[in-house]
Amino acid sequence: MDAQQTTQIVILGASGDLTSRKLLPGIFKAVRQELFPGKIQLVGVARRPWDDDLFQAHLDEHVPDQRGDEPQAWESFLKSVRYVRTHLDTDDDYKDLRQQLDDLAGERVHRVFYLAIKQDLFLPAVEGMHAHGLLNQSDGYTSRVVVEKPFGNDLHSATALNTALLNMLHEDQVYRIDHYLGKETVQNIIAFRFRNALFEPLWNNKYIETVQITVAEDIGMEGGRGGFYDSAGAMRDIMQNHLLQILSLIAMEPPASLAANDVRNEKVKVLQSLRLPEMSPDAKNHVVRGQYKGYLDEKGVDPASKTETYVAARGFIDNWRWGGVPFLLRTGKELPKRFTSVDVQFRMPPHSLFGAPNDCFLRPNNIRLRIQPHEGIDLGFEVKKPGAGLDMQVVKMDFDYDEHFEEPLVEAYQRLLQDVVNGDQSLFIRSDEVEASWRWIDSLRTVMDDTSVYTYDPQTWGPGAADQLFDECEGRWVKH
Amino acid sequence: MDAQQTTQIVILGASGDLTSRKLLPGIFKAVRQELFPGKIQLVGVARRPWDDDLFQAHLDEHVPDQRGDEPQAWESFLKSVRYVRTHLDTDDDYKDLRQQLDDLAGERVHRVFYLAIKQDLFLPAVEGMHAHGLLNQSDGYTSRVVVEKPFGNDLHSATALNTALLNMLHEDQVYRIDHYLGKETVQNIIAFRFRNALFEPLWNNKYIETVQITVAEDIGMEGGRGGFYDSAGAMRDIMQNHLLQILSLIAMEPPASLAANDVRNEKVKVLQSLRLPEMSPDAKNHVVRGQYKGYLDEKGVDPASKTETYVAARGFIDNWRWGGVPFLLRTGKELPKRFTSVDVQFRMPPHSLFGAPNDCFLRPNNIRLRIQPHEGIDLGFEVKKPGAGLDMQVVKMDFDYDEHFEEPLVEAYQRLLQDVVNGDQSLFIRSDEVEASWRWIDSLRTVMDDTSVYTYDPQTWGPGAADQLFDECEGRWVKH
Repeated sequence: MDAQQTTQIVILGASGDLTSRKLLPGIFKAVRQELFPGKIQLVGVARRPWDDDLFQAHLDEHVPDQRGDEPQAWESFLKSVRYVRTHLDTDDDYKDLRQQLDDLAGERVHRVFYLAIKQDLFLPAVEGMHAHGLLNQSDGYTSRVVVEKPFGNDLHSATALNTALLNMLHEDQVYRIDHYLGKETVQNIIAFRFRNALFEPLWNNKYIETVQITVAEDIGMEGGRGGFYDSAGAMRDIMQNHLLQILSLIAMEPPASLAANDVRNEKVKVLQSLRLPEMSPDAKNHVVRGQYKGYLDEKGVDPASKTETYVAARGFIDNWRWGGVPFLLRTGKELPKRFTSVDVQFRMPPHSLFGAPNDCFLRPNNIRLRIQPHEGIDLGFEVKKPGAGLDMQVVKMDFDYDEHFEEPLVEAYQRLLQDVVNGDQSLFIRSDEVEASWRWIDSLRTVMDDTSVYTYDPQTWGPGAADQLFDECEGRWVKH
Repeated sequence: MDAQQTTQIVILGASGDLTSRKLLPGIFKAVRQELFPGKIQLVGVARRPWDDDLFQAHLDEHVPDQRGDEPQAWESFLKSVRYVRTHLDTDDDYKDLRQQLDDLAGERVHRVFYLAIKQDLFLPAVEGMHAHGLLNQSDGYTSRVVVEKPFGNDLHSATALNTALLNMLHEDQVYRIDHYLGKETVQNIIAFRFRNALFEPLWNNKYIETVQITVAEDIGMEGGRGGFYDSAGAMRDIMQNHLLQILSLIAMEPPASLAANDVRNEKVKVLQSLRLPEMSPDAKNHVVRGQYKGYLDEKGVDPASKTETYVAARGFIDNWRWGGVPFLLRTGKELPKRFTSVDVQFRMPPHSLFGAPNDCFLRPNNIRLRIQPHEGIDLGFEVKKPGAGLDMQVVKMDFDYDEHFEEPLVEAYQRLLQDVVNGDQSLFIRSDEVEASWRWIDSLRTVMDDTSVYTYDPQTWGPGAADQLFDECEGRWVKH
C-alpha cells in the first residue's frame, strides 16, 4: 500500500461501548506509533443526532485514559474524527452514506467497514453498502468488512450468512474477528510451538495426557448483557469462538508457511477433526452445563431460562497426532477468578525409578500458557528436595511477559485493526473455520439433555459434576 | 544397622584443613539432625603432639561458624571428639592405633576410616590397618575406607592402587569420594532426567547439538596448593573426576534401579564409550591447554613448569544416544567467575517458519543446570516480542533452589558422610569408573603437544584458541 494513500475506517454502530472502549484507543495508539501505512481517516456512523463535535465530545468523555500521557496528540487526533448520522434503514440511507464518505475523503481511498452493530443488521448493512458500490475494489483500492461476533447462532445461520456475504464480497475482504486471536499470548502459541525445537517433539499423544483450556470469568451479566446472553449461552458466546480458536492453535500441525491461508488451512483441519459428539455413544457424559444461582433474576433474562452460564466438555481430535488425548474445554461466568489458560499435562514417565505410593502422583510435568492475566508460561517439573535421600518435589520454571519486556502488551483490538488495514487475515477466522466450529457446537447441543443444567453458587468453580469429565488419574480442573 | 550401635569415624590426617572446614561441620550437622543411624564416635588421628583437649581447641578455633546457632550443642559435640596421636609409620604405630580405637569404643563397633592424608600414604595406611584387623568385617560389624582424591595419577597408578586395595578390601568397603557427587544439584541430574517425562525424549543426538560442562574457578594457587597442583594440573585435578563424573550423569542411560551398582553400571558405560583421543586423527585439535600468567611465580611451582591451569576439550561418546554430539569440557583457574554448570544446547528447529538472517541465530533452546553457585535450572526459549509482526526474542524460564526451598542445600561432605555410615555407595566412584576416566585422560595426554600450553591473563576466560573447539554455529563457551 502506498504510504501516501488514505484508509477510511468507518465504524458502523459507533455510538456503542466497543467503539469508545476498544476501537478508538486501538486506532489512536496505532496512529501515534505510526503503525498504519499511509493516513487514516476515522468516521463514526450511527443513528444518534450528533455532529462531528458532539461525537468527538462523546469519545472524549468515554474513551478511557487517553488524555494522560499525550493530551495534545489526543486532542489533535480527536479533532480529525468525523461523524455520519444515518439510520442505515433505507436504500437512500446508504446512498447518502456513500455520498458523505466520498465527500470526506474522495473516492480514491481504501475503506474498512467495521460492523459494530447487532448481528441481524450485518447482512442488510453489507447489502446496502454493496448496492452503492462501497464494497467495490478497483484501481488498487481495497474495501474490507470487519464482522464482530456472533457470526451466526448455529451452523445453519452461519452458513447462510457466509453464503450471502460471499455473494457480495470475496473471502479476502471479510475479516471475521475474534479478539482473542489479537492477544499477544494467543499469537505466541504459534511462536512457542514452531520457533522452538524443544516442545514440538513432545506435542502429541505419546507424551501428552490431557489438554485443558479454560476461559474463566468472575463477572455475571454486568453491562446489561442479559438479554443477548440469554439467547446465546456459554457454548455460543465463548466456546464456539475463543475456546475452539485456542484449541486449533494448540493442536494444529506445522503450517507450510505463516501466510494467512496456510495457517488457517491447518486450524480448520483441527476443527474438522474434532469428533462430533453425536457420533459417540457416551457423548452425553462428556458435557456438563451449569447456571449460576441468581442468573434468572438478571435483567433481560427469561425467568424460566435453561441457558447455560457454564459449560465444560471433553473433546477428542481424531487424527494421528492427538488420537486418544482428551481436550477439556471449560468456560463460565461468576467463577472465583478471571483467567484464560491452556494447561498441557504430560504423561507419567514410562518407568518410575523413584517409587511412589500412587501413580496418580507421578505426573509432575505440565506446561501452562497463561493467556490472561499475568501473561506468561510455566513449566512444572520435579526436582530433588534438599536433604538426604531422593525425595522429590514439584516446582516450576516460569516466564512472565511483564518481567522480560518493558513495553506493555499490545491490546488485541489495536493489533487486529492494524492487520485489517494491512490486509493480513492471519488472525481472522475464515468461513470454513466458522462452519466447522458451529458443526461441533451444534452436535454437542444435540446430545445434551435439556434438563441437565446444574445450578451453582456464584463465585464457585461451577457444577461438581464437571469433575467427572476426567478419568481417574487424569487430574482435575485447574483453579489458579 | 541397629540404632543402638556405634559407628567410630576415624579421620586419618585430622589436623588438616579438610577436617576442620568440611568433615567436622558435616558430621556435626548430621548428628544434630539425627541423620546417622545409631551413635557416632569421632576420632581424629594425626602426628601432632595433641591430646583430646588440644584437638578440640584446634577444631573450636578452625571450624567455621559452628557456635552461631547452637553454642551449647557444639560444645557438647566437641567434648565428645577424641584424638589419637600416631605417626602411622611402623607396624607398632598401627598396633597402637588398633589398641586405642578398641579402648575408646570396644571391638563391637562399625568403623569408617577417612583417609584425609596424602596420596602416597593411602596404601601404607590401609596395609597397616589391615595387618591389625581394623578392616575385618565380622558379626555384622562393618569397616569402610573413604579415599579422597587424587586416586592415582594415571591409569597405571590408579589400577595398581585399586588392585592393592582390593586385595585387602571388598569393593563395597571402598568409598572413593568425589565431593561433587555430594552436591544437591549434581544428584538432581538423575532426578531431573528420570523423574520427569519431559526431558528424556529430547535427551539424545536427534535434539541435542552440544553439551558444555564447565568448572570455572576464580582463584589460583591460594592455600599453598602450588606444590601439589604443579604435579597434577587441571586435567588430573578437575577434569578426570568432577568433569567426567558430571558427564557420566548427564549422558547415562536410565539405570535398572537407583541401587548403587545399577547407577554405576550406567555411568561406567558412558566413560567406557568416550572415544579415546588417540583413535582420532584430529584429536590434537580437540584439546586446548593454558597456564595463567604468574603461575610460574607461585610458591611450590617449578619455574619452568608446563603444567596446565586451564584445559578445554571436545569429546565424543560413541553410542547410539550420543553419536556425533560434541561434549565440550572446560575447567580453569583464575577465570573471571567461579561457577559450575552444564549447558545443553538444542538443535535448531527442523524448519524455520519465521525466517532468519543466519541459521546460527536459530538455536534458542538450551537447558542450563546451574550446579554452583545460584543453584537452579534455566530453560532458554523464544517467545513473540510484544508488538506488531512476529519478532522473536530469546527469554528464559528459570527455577532457583533458594527461592523454592527454605532449607539450605545440604553440604556435599555431610551428605557423603551420611551415605558412608549408611553403606550407600551410589555417590562414590567404583574402581572401573576411576580406571575408565584415567584411560581417557591418559589418551588425551598422549595426543597433546607438550609445547602447546598457551598463556592467558588471570581473570580472563583462558586461551582464545579454546573457542575453536566449536564448529561454526555450534555456539561458544558460556561466560555467565
